[in-house]
Amino acid sequence: MKKTKEKVNAAIIIIGNEILSGRTQDVNVVTISLWLNEIGVKLDEVRVIPDIESSIIQTINEVRKKFKYVFTTGGIGPTHDDITSLCVAKAFNMKYGYHNKAYAILEKYYGKQKFNLGRKKMAMMPIKAALILNPSSGAPGFIVENVYCLPGVPSILKSMLGGLKNKIKGGKKILSKTVIVNTVESEIAKSLESVQHKFKKVDIGSYPFFRLGKIGVSIVIRSSDKKKIDECYKEIVSFLKKKKIIMIGEK
Amino acid sequence: MKKTKEKVNAAIIIIGNEILSGRTQDVNVVTISLWLNEIGVKLDEVRVIPDIESSIIQTINEVRKKFKYVFTTGGIGPTHDDITSLCVAKAFNMKYGYHNKAYAILEKYYGKQKFNLGRKKMAMMPIKAALILNPSSGAPGFIVENVYCLPGVPSILKSMLGGLKNKIKGGKKILSKTVIVNTVESEIAKSLESVQHKFKKVDIGSYPFFRLGKIGVSIVIRSSDKKKIDECYKEIVSFLKKKKIIMIGEK
Repeated sequence: MKKTKEKVNAAIIIIGNEILSGRTQDVNVVTISLWLNEIGVKLDEVRVIPDIESSIIQTINEVRKKFKYVFTTGGIGPTHDDITSLCVAKAFNMKYGYHNKAYAILEKYYGKQKFNLGRKKMAMMPIKAALILNPSSGAPGFIVENVYCLPGVPSILKSMLGGLKNKIKGGKKILSKTVIVNTVESEIAKSLESVQHKFKKVDIGSYPFFRLGKIGVSIVIRSSDKKKIDECYKEIVSFLKKKKIIMIGEK
Repeated sequence: MKKTKEKVNAAIIIIGNEILSGRTQDVNVVTISLWLNEIGVKLDEVRVIPDIESSIIQTINEVRKKFKYVFTTGGIGPTHDDITSLCVAKAFNMKYGYHNKAYAILEKYYGKQKFNLGRKKMAMMPIKAALILNPSSGAPGFIVENVYCLPGVPSILKSMLGGLKNKIKGGKKILSKTVIVNTVESEIAKSLESVQHKFKKVDIGSYPFFRLGKIGVSIVIRSSDKKKIDECYKEIVSFLKKKKIIMIGEK
């Protein structure tokens, strides 16, 4: 795994049979990734794994050593298939049980009478974990070292990211510029390659599309260095003009 | 990684910075997974990795040993960031170059005059690969041993799966039954756990939802054994009745 020194990187582990079975379309990767871009963290890998204890423990232990930050989604609810918290405790060899603060939060949220066994399970986690507060539905996520455990329900996950901002030290914000052209990829492949060769630290991506009956290509320039993006953009615009390729948009 | 002997499993490697950056929402996992269910192959892992040669080679070599079938998506187009074909050749230590049959297909598709260098690049792959024909846009995918390389564009990928059916030997079709109830997860957690305990070879998943202002839970029973699903279903319906929990749907 190539690591870029100047960049702060992250991985996501999506824990959930429902994603692997095709039942549920994941949307959390886009949410977390766009949020990470904003705080200058580059998402470098995603894994989707089943609700199997050995897989979860093994994946967490492998991934947390490779990346600066690891986010898990899913498996922290009240049912039998929610085993993420237990697995994180096992991965870190930490004591698993009722987390005092989480227990107090949940008891207050549901009220003593409605705080049943299933709900109490959501207070079970590595007992020394730091909490990630949940402004939507009570049950907190938690942090152990560089592993951040979030729920799988997209709206709840989204609401919890705001509270994480000052717990993560990002690098420079990752910027991007997109040029949309009215051509096919093969027409610009060679020129684009030369530009990429010249700007090695800028990521240049080329994405063909078919939209409203029209074909085209989005050229995406990404870097944390605005100057480099601008220089790269100029070179691209310059070869497009030479080739008489029409730019139909940019953002 | 736990492997179920009677089941045929698979992994997907999504190769693409555009998914990791949050620019593009992946939809290929759902497409491939639902198709695999039909032919009795269970998707056991997904990895999303960047367009970096070392990452691709390492991931392919790791994953192809762990799973019966591996599908890659993305990176087989004409531009500089399309490096999947080269990486597969390197992973298998095979000669990379123009694939005779792929070259002929593409030359015919574009016509000799329009068959430029970018398009020719799409004929470059491990020269002894088997081809996956592309009914949408000419450029074929390819197979090396248990690794199946598909494009990233969803509509094209979808059109190519049909041609793969008799190249993959699945097990029994994976069936599922869903029971939708008007309750919260914590109310059914304990009973569901008992049922799961009794039916160890059936996957029971519990997924809360908030829809049209209503809350509920989808209980999903999955197995290749219809009888086991039916038995499991009966037990679930039975405890729901006892608990006076209303079933609002099933499928």
